Amino acid sequence: MVGGGQGAFIGAVHRIASRIDDRWELVAGALSSNPERAAASAAELGIAEDRSYGSFEEMAQAEAAREDGIDAVAIVTPNHVHAGPAVAFLEAGINVICDKPLAATPEDGERIAAAVAASKAKFILTHNYTGYPLIRQAREMVARGDLGELRIVQAEYAQDWLTEAPEPGNKQADWRTDPARAGGGGIGDIGTHAYNLLGFVSGLKTSALAADLASFVPGRKVDDNAHILLRFEGGAKGMVWVSQVAPGCENGLRLRLYGDKGGIEWHQENPNVMRYTPFGEPTRLLTRGGAGLGGGAGTDTRIPPGHPEGYLEGFANLYRDAADLIAGENDGALLPGIEAGLEGMWFISACQESSGKDGAWVKK
Amino acid sequence: MVGGGQGAFIGAVHRIASRIDDRWELVAGALSSNPERAAASAAELGIAEDRSYGSFEEMAQAEAAREDGIDAVAIVTPNHVHAGPAVAFLEAGINVICDKPLAATPEDGERIAAAVAASKAKFILTHNYTGYPLIRQAREMVARGDLGELRIVQAEYAQDWLTEAPEPGNKQADWRTDPARAGGGGIGDIGTHAYNLLGFVSGLKTSALAADLASFVPGRKVDDNAHILLRFEGGAKGMVWVSQVAPGCENGLRLRLYGDKGGIEWHQENPNVMRYTPFGEPTRLLTRGGAGLGGGAGTDTRIPPGHPEGYLEGFANLYRDAADLIAGENDGALLPGIEAGLEGMWFISACQESSGKDGAWVKK
Amino acid sequence: MVGGGQGAFIGAVHRIASRIDDRWELVAGALSSNPERAAASAAELGIAEDRSYGSFEEMAQAEAAREDGIDAVAIVTPNHVHAGPAVAFLEAGINVICDKPLAATPEDGERIAAAVAASKAKFILTHNYTGYPLIRQAREMVARGDLGELRIVQAEYAQDWLTEAPEPGNKQADWRTDPARAGGGGIGDIGTHAYNLLGFVSGLKTSALAADLASFVPGRKVDDNAHILLRFEGGAKGMVWVSQVAPGCENGLRLRLYGDKGGIEWHQENPNVMRYTPFGEPTRLLTRGGAGLGGGAGTDTRIPPGHPEGYLEGFANLYRDAADLIAGENDGALLPGIEAGLEGMWFISACQESSGKDGAWVKK
Amino acid sequence: MVGGGQGAFIGAVHRIASRIDDRWELVAGALSSNPERAAASAAELGIAEDRSYGSFEEMAQAEAAREDGIDAVAIVTPNHVHAGPAVAFLEAGINVICDKPLAATPEDGERIAAAVAASKAKFILTHNYTGYPLIRQAREMVARGDLGELRIVQAEYAQDWLTEAPEPGNKQADWRTDPARAGGGGIGDIGTHAYNLLGFVSGLKTSALAADLASFVPGRKVDDNAHILLRFEGGAKGMVWVSQVAPGCENGLRLRLYGDKGGIEWHQENPNVMRYTPFGEPTRLLTRGGAGLGGGAGTDTRIPPGHPEGYLEGFANLYRDAADLIAGENDGALLPGIEAGLEGMWFISACQESSGKDGAWVKK
Repeated sequence: MVGGGQGAFIGAVHRIASRIDDRWELVAGALSSNPERAAASAAELGIAEDRSYGSFEEMAQAEAAREDGIDAVAIVTPNHVHAGPAVAFLEAGINVICDKPLAATPEDGERIAAAVAASKAKFILTHNYTGYPLIRQAREMVARGDLGELRIVQAEYAQDWLTEAPEPGNKQADWRTDPARAGGGGIGDIGTHAYNLLGFVSGLKTSALAADLASFVPGRKVDDNAHILLRFEGGAKGMVWVSQVAPGCENGLRLRLYGDKGGIEWHQENPNVMRYTPFGEPTRLLTRGGAGLGGGAGTDTRIPPGHPEGYLEGFANLYRDAADLIAGENDGALLPGIEAGLEGMWFISACQESSGKDGAWVKK
Repeated sequence: MVGGGQGAFIGAVHRIASRIDDRWELVAGALSSNPERAAASAAELGIAEDRSYGSFEEMAQAEAAREDGIDAVAIVTPNHVHAGPAVAFLEAGINVICDKPLAATPEDGERIAAAVAASKAKFILTHNYTGYPLIRQAREMVARGDLGELRIVQAEYAQDWLTEAPEPGNKQADWRTDPARAGGGGIGDIGTHAYNLLGFVSGLKTSALAADLASFVPGRKVDDNAHILLRFEGGAKGMVWVSQVAPGCENGLRLRLYGDKGGIEWHQENPNVMRYTPFGEPTRLLTRGGAGLGGGAGTDTRIPPGHPEGYLEGFANLYRDAADLIAGENDGALLPGIEAGLEGMWFISACQESSGKDGAWVKK
Repeated sequence: MVGGGQGAFIGAVHRIASRIDDRWELVAGALSSNPERAAASAAELGIAEDRSYGSFEEMAQAEAAREDGIDAVAIVTPNHVHAGPAVAFLEAGINVICDKPLAATPEDGERIAAAVAASKAKFILTHNYTGYPLIRQAREMVARGDLGELRIVQAEYAQDWLTEAPEPGNKQADWRTDPARAGGGGIGDIGTHAYNLLGFVSGLKTSALAADLASFVPGRKVDDNAHILLRFEGGAKGMVWVSQVAPGCENGLRLRLYGDKGGIEWHQENPNVMRYTPFGEPTRLLTRGGAGLGGGAGTDTRIPPGHPEGYLEGFANLYRDAADLIAGENDGALLPGIEAGLEGMWFISACQESSGKDGAWVKK
Repeated sequence: MVGGGQGAFIGAVHRIASRIDDRWELVAGALSSNPERAAASAAELGIAEDRSYGSFEEMAQAEAAREDGIDAVAIVTPNHVHAGPAVAFLEAGINVICDKPLAATPEDGERIAAAVAASKAKFILTHNYTGYPLIRQAREMVARGDLGELRIVQAEYAQDWLTEAPEPGNKQADWRTDPARAGGGGIGDIGTHAYNLLGFVSGLKTSALAADLASFVPGRKVDDNAHILLRFEGGAKGMVWVSQVAPGCENGLRLRLYGDKGGIEWHQENPNVMRYTPFGEPTRLLTRGGAGLGGGAGTDTRIPPGHPEGYLEGFANLYRDAADLIAGENDGALLPGIEAGLEGMWFISACQESSGKDGAWVKK
């Protein structure tokens, strides 16, 4: 693991997610750019002293050289520190599991893409919401035509934690609201999740985007609210709303898709149920692992329907699938990779470009 | 009543709404442009033969001449037949209660506005959703600052009944999908409701609008889906979604408003409850007439909280308030009138103009 | 109308319900036992002076003698004043629409039953919740076997308005918490509704009942909470919960039925949707007038699905059906009558008897 | 671990729950009474060959004798195989984490209780629903008086998976519907959870119970539906519903508590939100880790509010607290132990006794 030392948030999430199915063990790390914190964090997490590294460069080289070197590295640093380690490990031939978005700048994104292309190692981007069983169910249903031809697709991801300027020293807020380290505000942090999920489920290809970004909190240097219109190849239309200043919204990631034969609605805050309406019939409540769900999504759940799974189990599905992919036991078709990462980078920059041009459509 | 004969829909709704509080009696009508249907409809509804008229012109003159002439006329015809009767009754000095949108064309809208300006009679436009008690509660809360300064406001009105091309001869669908008679598709029929409601509750003034209209159903001549961005004076931003092709949506009119101090969410399909979140505190479920609701909204409800009121009771609040207004017992501040009508006409034409210019912002 | 003068609650509800479909007109009344209040109330309601009576006896005789006498009387007095007017009007040959429960005492109930048996006039008891379209839909579904053989049926009706002792002089609370005038506490006021609804939908015949009544509020002389077990002919089992001291519950009337082929759940506070699960399939959300609802319930609704109807419209269905029944246009099969009333009287006394015997089963 | 070999269900749940916080490692097991299956299961789970035992007796002795012996054993066998291993490990001085209910017979329960009393080892019973953060929040709120004096408490646990007789050979259904191995039907398998949770949150002491058990499915030898009334010391009243034959219910565990100052409602299928109503104020939606939740429950959650946690995370809280208890870092006050186990055994036998006496009250 690179990053994820004391005071970090998403590193701990990755560690739990990787443990749930007992397919991964944390054995090495460069947990912090601060050597003391790195060592202390490693000790806490039971990493042997000789595998706690002072830098990711050192770690990539040393682990590549070991017979029992790591199977993959998890990169859980702030966005502007994704490219460095990603390239280093890919060049060392080590599989990479990288937190999203891909990078803080398009240039960094391209560097990673080049390294992926040049390496035999796998690259997985943790757009973790794709791991929810009902999201995979929705993708299957769209693919097999249950909704007919898609016309309207909408995603939103609304939070309220940045409604006011955060206290100075709030580590999570600090880098997320710093353009240099984050690369984008809400659109990068959560907007890329919403946009990725829309594409994952719908299978649609974006043709153009128009965005109206706002920074409502005085002094904020990145967007904290975004209203976005989408057009897709084939004629479907979309909307995306991203906000970090919507009081009453915690992690309100929602997805809605409507075709000429049916519609689907899903909400992350209660992810074990999905509304599905075949046009002209009553709405069905599909439940995770529940009655009437044929197909592969059944394999993504650990406990009986009605016993809720949550965010961590969805995240764990990515770690389990990554283990399978590396072991050659699946084809990784459900795992977001470099293409998803580049798509996300395009999304961020297209939003910024469109908003800078007063909401003009930016074509892809 | 003008319109509302056999086979009509909204006329019957107006009649029920007017009866609920026993403030109105239906005594005269020009119920259909077809004289036989007009007479038959009048007989069914208990209108005396001599007050069943063959045309609205005739009715306006005759009723104006009677000592016991009508207190007001309800105009419930298709959109392109609003201006004629509205002007005729206004000129005759008779109060007008007109269904929305104001008219099928901007020119017609202006004609009505001129007649309103020249008449002492009142003009009320039945944007009936403003009659829901919790909508009035929301308006009060915004006005007194419970949400702080508004930043983000969103409305949506989604239906699915036009997902497929309707059977020929479906009277409701026929005129609503005919540009000449309707003046707009979904944006006119239901979009004006959503847009009106947003303004009614938020009190915000629109400064510009950008729209992406679509006609998904082959052969359809009007919009059946609209994705709309809004900007308001003072800096707030908005989104509106209007659709008649979203399977699973019946009359999904929703409103969401977020300020720097709190947020509100309301959904017409369960209108007796509203989510209200003061920032940093748990969400409250405000119920119609329920605990903790100070202020005037309490007067708009007839039965105890927990006993649901619905669409008809909300509509009835407009008829009751109209009776009070005409009787001089209230100032009509809550009743949509000609300004709301003109605003709706601007909304329709601005959506069409923006969409015609590839989504460029249309300023107001 | 008998009762329903100034300060009354349910009388106004009856008046609105009767107006909604324009089948009734209020033309006569004995609105209060207080002559001045009776006269003032009548004037307010537009009743002609000569048809505002000082007593129900007088009204029954006078109206029976008129050529244009009333078609039916609505009795909306406190429970202990049901039997007097009901018998008087039945004996005068005038149809009776009586609020529930049937009476304050079993003896009074029997008197009414005898009068019904001896009269050609109709007797309708306003268990108004039976008028909700989805309740009638549920009854149809049970009757045609959609749920298979019923095993478990449950009803609850929970309120919180009597959580604390009411202020002295609260007219609604006063008589409802007085054993002499009410005949029962929560079990009479709302328990009979829940019990009636269970039987209306399920079609089951009760064989025995066991009850645990409580009066939680110090000084209260009637029950304010009841936990009740039921057994039915054929082996089904039931539970009923009735409470007026459950904070957070407004008018929480819920119904749940489970058979060997499916289950149904319905909640009065959002009455336009019902959950229906065919065993082994996903749950369906059936909506009032919505997709997939065959059968007669479609005739009980006035506006399109997604536009909510509520308590008053359900109540209005009883008034409309009563008009049809009196006009000979329906058979009254859906209208609660004297049998439902006697069943409710049995329910009240069986609850009291069982609770007095420490919850022993009381057979029917 | 004792039990939990191939084909088992709850063993895998325990393993995941123990891994989530990285406080436990599975190093030894007697995973099946079938030696071959035991060995194969151990190999799959990475247990060293010399610590895969053929019987629990052998394991208890061997592990007690090792310097690096296990810190605790998890017993995840069918109910009738709880007492044997529990006593063996307790006598060997090894801490026991035992699945619920305590045992299949009262005698077995007493044996375990005696062994607990005689041992220094800890005994933890995995009533896992007590681990949900909002359940602990509710317990805190009741304890500090937010609800006032409790009057009405209700729990229900409804499933539908046994609506029809299961296929022969369904391992989970087989032993759960065999009186000899299960000791009770639904009341033991899920009723004890509901009853335990009611006591955990309310803090009330049961004084008496009356039950009406049913076995609806032809040929079933244990209860599959139970309607239960409760009385508590101090005067509060309760109801419990337990069913495995309620179509549409997956794992419908719900809790409702009402006092003279407020009420609470919680539903396991969406466990991250709880309704709380202070009497006379609007209902609050409390969310896991969300706004306005003071107190200790905040420590029981791993990810931000709005990111759902589920069944496994709640279960994991018990494993984490057990680790702390064994390490001397907490007092185990929130961990169900032998008293909870005996209380559950009383519940089962009192239900059976009462039902056998036609629902007579069984005192405690």
